Formats: sequence, C-alpha cells, structure tokens
Amino acid sequence: MSGLPDPGSTPRTRVKRIPEKAVTDREVAYAILDAGLVAHVAVVTHGQPYVVPVGYARVGDEVIFHGSSASRLFKTLSTGAPTCLTVTLLDGLVLARSLFESSMHYRTVMALGTCRRLEGDDAVAALLDLSERLMPGRPSEARHPAPQELKATITLALPLVEISVKVGDGPPEDVPEDLVDPVYSRIWAGWVPITESFGEPMADEFATGIPVPDYVRAWRRS
Amino acid sequence: MSGLPDPGSTPRTRVKRIPEKAVTDREVAYAILDAGLVAHVAVVTHGQPYVVPVGYARVGDEVIFHGSSASRLFKTLSTGAPTCLTVTLLDGLVLARSLFESSMHYRTVMALGTCRRLEGDDAVAALLDLSERLMPGRPSEARHPAPQELKATITLALPLVEISVKVGDGPPEDVPEDLVDPVYSRIWAGWVPITESFGEPMADEFATGIPVPDYVRAWRRS
Repeated sequence: MSGLPDPGSTPRTRVKRIPEKAVTDREVAYAILDAGLVAHVAVVTHGQPYVVPVGYARVGDEVIFHGSSASRLFKTLSTGAPTCLTVTLLDGLVLARSLFESSMHYRTVMALGTCRRLEGDDAVAALLDLSERLMPGRPSEARHPAPQELKATITLALPLVEISVKVGDGPPEDVPEDLVDPVYSRIWAGWVPITESFGEPMADEFATGIPVPDYVRAWRRS
Repeated sequence: MSGLPDPGSTPRTRVKRIPEKAVTDREVAYAILDAGLVAHVAVVTHGQPYVVPVGYARVGDEVIFHGSSASRLFKTLSTGAPTCLTVTLLDGLVLARSLFESSMHYRTVMALGTCRRLEGDDAVAALLDLSERLMPGRPSEARHPAPQELKATITLALPLVEISVKVGDGPPEDVPEDLVDPVYSRIWAGWVPITESFGEPMADEFATGIPVPDYVRAWRRS
C-alpha cells in the first residue's frame, strides 16, 4: 500500500458531510471491501450515468470484476472511461428520539478512477481470484474458464488509488433537548442490528445424491 | 401506473445481456424497491461519476430520498442533473459445475431520470413517508422534523419512468457437456441462499429501562 494516498485525502474523495464518520485508514477500507460481495459500478454515456451491480474481489491494491464482452457498459469501462465503484454494507437501523437524527449503521467505500482490461494469463488469474473470493474453495473442483468463455468475458481491474471510506456506527446522536424532553426522553432509542447469513445449500436436480462440500458448509456472512 | 412505459421498454433500459433475466412487469420492480433499504445513486460532475448509498422509499411512482443541504452531490441532483438509482438485493450464490456459469441470485432495479426537489409540506410528507418505510411505526412516537432540520435537508423525488429490472434465480445453467463429463458431473452444484435479518434491538444508555416497542419487535427482513 506504499505510495498510495490515504482514503479521503484527495479533493475528490474528502468526506465533507459528517466528517467524523470519515475513515482515513486504508486497512479499514480493504476490510470493508473484503466483507462485501456486490459492488455498484457507474459508467457515463452521453452524460447519463448507469449504475450496475457486480460481484467483485479485492486483490492487492485493486478491485477485480467482470462482465460480458458484448456489454456496452463493460466495453465503455474497458476503454478507460471514468468510473466509480461503491461497496456498502448495511449493519443496522439507528433509532434516535427524532426522525432527523435517526440513521443507519453502515460501512461504505467509494473508489474513483479508470479500469484497465486484463488479458490472457492475467485475466485467467484474476477470474480465479474472483471465484475464490466469492466462493472460497470452489475453484479447486469446478471447471476453469475455457478459451471461448474467456473470449466472452471482459475482466477489469480498478486500482484503489483515490478512495473514500465512511463508517456509521455507535448509538444515536440525539440533540440535547430531546434527551430531557418530557415526551421524547421517555421513548425507546437505540439501534437494531442487521445481519446477513447463508441458508441451507440447495442441490440442483443433477446433484441430489452428492454431499454438500465441506468448503461450502464453512461459508459465513457478517 | 397508467401511462408509464413498461420496465426495459426504452432504448436506454432495454436489457441486452442475458435478456431472459429481464422483467417487464412494473409490479415486480415495485416489490423489489419495497424490499430494499439502501439504493445507490449516481451523480456526474465534470464527467466523473460518484455513487453514494442512500436510504430510500418508493411512494407511488416515485422514489424518495434525502441528504444534506450542504452536500455538493445533493445540490447537483436537485438542479435536475441526470441520475441513475439502483437497488440490488442479493439472494444467494449459484454454484455451477463451471466457474463461468456460476453466478448469483439477485433482484435489481435501475431507474434513470432526473430528481425534483420537494419543498414545504411536500418535503415534510415525503420525509415522514421515508421514515415510516424504513422504520415502520417510528414516526408515531419520534419527534418530527423541526424547521431548522428541514432547512438542513434536501428531499428529492425520482420519478420511476425509465426503469429496468433484472432477476437472477433458479438453478445453475450448466453447459450440457459438463452435465455428462466424468469429472464435473460428479461435483455438487446448486445454490446457497443468503438472507438478511434483524438482530436483538440494543438500547442506548438513556433508554435502558424502557421496553423495546412492539412495532420494532415486529420488523422483519427478507
């Protein structure tokens, strides 16, 4: 991570709103990226932004994701169009005594920059990294990409240079008047955690007699 | 919903990739929007897109969300800059016999357009709708916005005119060769559901003796 700017340290990534929620530690940003599964990626065409969800993996100081070679959006991204990739984890609802101070627990990372298209062995390595991150253990037994599948895929890497991080946590931050108000000081306030979890693996019709692999059983969320 | 185009029916919203996952039923789009809590909204400044997470509510044929009056991004949105709001619900991981056909279960709605800023009573009504949607029952006892809080807030409505919907569900769609391959036909394949749930409500230090309201206990995810 040497030589890369701190999160939030460039004019475009400085957190202006609620700056106390800004995080300038790159390790925190990477931990958030490593906890998420889906990122939202923007591409601009004729001034119109489009935001699409993608599965992704952080690998070193880059985020890897992929799409179809026939996708206009992915073709635009592969030419180096300016993009923004945002990952948000929702951790809870925060109930203050006022609606205004009510909020959410969240962790979010925004990365600005341009993607480079990975080709050949680099693309294969990145796609295996991506699969291993999203489905740990799976690349050890599932079939790896065939040449025509690689041809149908655009694999992109977004360098994590200009990033910003925001974390909302802790109790509600009520205005002092509400804490002593005869009505509002008597209502319950706090937060309700949100967690994500894997359910029971479901076999397809061709795998009904095959045991669920241990590496799948070991997967955990949150 | 009369007079509004079907999801995916405009050139900008037509689902070109994996068109069999496209949904053209507006009711499905609205059900997805009503199941999510966080949307990702894009705004473009000097050609650079920014994607930020927001809590939101669908109200009729619009999506409501809000931000700070001091936020550059929200100020830009309130002037009618082209935007895209995307909501994605992740429902599971799909493990095919090949990495290429492995995917996710998801439901996603993308809305393109421009926001209008709500003012006065319209803004108050929208903010109460937003609170009631994100925290059902809460507006009945929490303090409503004060004039200076309203002044500090930009409340936006994005009309749901041009939208597209994609739903990924069902078993993996393996290539026929993998289903009869001596190695790959013998590995487990299927999907692993992902669910979201609320945890035990946590009182802040001033509410420790106050019972958790029934309306909070009734909240459910997924």
